[in-house]
Amino acid sequence: MSLLVVGSVAFDSVKTPFGEVEEVLGGSATYFSTAASYFTDVSLVAVVGDDFPEAHLTFLKERGINIDGLERSAGRTFRWKGEYSYQLNEAKTLETELNVFETFHPNLPESYRDAPVVFLANIDPVLQLDVLRQVKSPRLVACDTMNFWIEGKLGELIKTLASVDILLINDGEARELANEVNLVKAARKIMSFGPKILVVKQGEYGALMFNEETMFSAPAFPLESVFDPTGAGDSFAGGFMGYLAKCGEMDDAAIRQAVIYGSTMASFNVEAFSLDRMRSLREEEITTRYQAFKALTTFENV
Amino acid sequence: MSLLVVGSVAFDSVKTPFGEVEEVLGGSATYFSTAASYFTDVSLVAVVGDDFPEAHLTFLKERGINIDGLERSAGRTFRWKGEYSYQLNEAKTLETELNVFETFHPNLPESYRDAPVVFLANIDPVLQLDVLRQVKSPRLVACDTMNFWIEGKLGELIKTLASVDILLINDGEARELANEVNLVKAARKIMSFGPKILVVKQGEYGALMFNEETMFSAPAFPLESVFDPTGAGDSFAGGFMGYLAKCGEMDDAAIRQAVIYGSTMASFNVEAFSLDRMRSLREEEITTRYQAFKALTTFENV
Repeated sequence: MSLLVVGSVAFDSVKTPFGEVEEVLGGSATYFSTAASYFTDVSLVAVVGDDFPEAHLTFLKERGINIDGLERSAGRTFRWKGEYSYQLNEAKTLETELNVFETFHPNLPESYRDAPVVFLANIDPVLQLDVLRQVKSPRLVACDTMNFWIEGKLGELIKTLASVDILLINDGEARELANEVNLVKAARKIMSFGPKILVVKQGEYGALMFNEETMFSAPAFPLESVFDPTGAGDSFAGGFMGYLAKCGEMDDAAIRQAVIYGSTMASFNVEAFSLDRMRSLREEEITTRYQAFKALTTFENV
Repeated sequence: MSLLVVGSVAFDSVKTPFGEVEEVLGGSATYFSTAASYFTDVSLVAVVGDDFPEAHLTFLKERGINIDGLERSAGRTFRWKGEYSYQLNEAKTLETELNVFETFHPNLPESYRDAPVVFLANIDPVLQLDVLRQVKSPRLVACDTMNFWIEGKLGELIKTLASVDILLINDGEARELANEVNLVKAARKIMSFGPKILVVKQGEYGALMFNEETMFSAPAFPLESVFDPTGAGDSFAGGFMGYLAKCGEMDDAAIRQAVIYGSTMASFNVEAFSLDRMRSLREEEITTRYQAFKALTTFENV
């Protein structure tokens, strides 16, 4: 099944203890769609300014991503500047320039409106719902969000969540959204808002998936060199949703495999700045790392 | 095989968001030996003061723990006072009174000196080595340590590590010991000090095991009520070492199972203050939770 994503396409300036880059390709929808493109057809909805270079469009097109829904507006592209300390666990945002993103009102191309699988990346929950209403009869809808919307637009977010099957969210944000420190209780509360499945992203510690019947825990892959965590969560979501769209199943077994594919894509993404690791990533490497996750987590029963 | 442990037996005063207790049974060797007693014969080496009540000795004896090596000295028992915030991830130490522990020089009873498996809980690395030298020909030696010794007695600690097969340590302390932020690199460096196996405890996030050939990741069990994390690391070590001593194997498969048993014992321990959960814990519950770990981490190959 094909996969529609709405989110940001941006220029990121990032400093980590291992290097520094200026105005490289970034944005939630960029990371997501690139990771997902290894699994299924992806249609991208986003906006860029007139400063957005052709080379980035070529990269997305070469990954097979449909960019008919990538609006080009007069003005500057969304910019984000951040920095990581040695722990690499949380970005310190130094600057955010919304630019053309500030007045973005997505209008889906006709060809996008039959999308069976939809991912609403981390944008204003009002926009998320607006995009979702333009899709005729989606079979699976997932979304991400962040503390900014939890704190500023909780009512709107709760309304969006009522129409969503799967929520992917950071652990700290899950606790904030549920106003509950205990993650198991927080998960139950969030699922009462609508999502039947909750994936809690825990950064370097992996991810926890909750559904109505079971829990599933996946580690992050222990890597010898983590270069830049920017986009890890969106790459996770791309691998996760891409696999679900590809296999067309949404049972517990498929969701668990999807979590591992998400973790796999995130683990590659952090190995380089921007989407650079994706520029050389081959499908066999994905399969090999999936199997490495199996070796990492397997133990014999008693 | 029987298991010898040297460590602390203490009175703990603990405050968590869920309650408060004064001078309850605690200490690394207490948690360790109680958890290990579900798997194998345990001999305890520690010191208490003349204020240590008979009821606690009875509890240990009823768990089948050999306390011939539990010295009773004139003076007060070791006391620790700590507090946890809502996150429950790290104790804030409010008071430490070493008391009789300050001048403790373990002298093993003759019957202890043939112990095949030894665990040196978190005490002065000089004492750890001193105890180890009194054991004739141990087949497996493991130890724990903490930032206090890494910062204050690094040379002595490195010397102890040279005689140790397995080190169990917190993630922050592993990074500090290796002076390396990346955990995979830190693990390799620590293993160059002696241990062939390293178990990195990550609190609410579980544990990572490194040996010469593989890595193994186990989550902490997601619990709906975590009451008091005090002793979780020592209970983990007790389940881990208890299982290894019981099964008599030290291959990769056994070590992985041992990590899960360690995680299982830690998950029970945090459900109540002090060792209270252990007072009612039945063997069937251990098997059930081990299997729940399997369900929590299993996914199908591709």
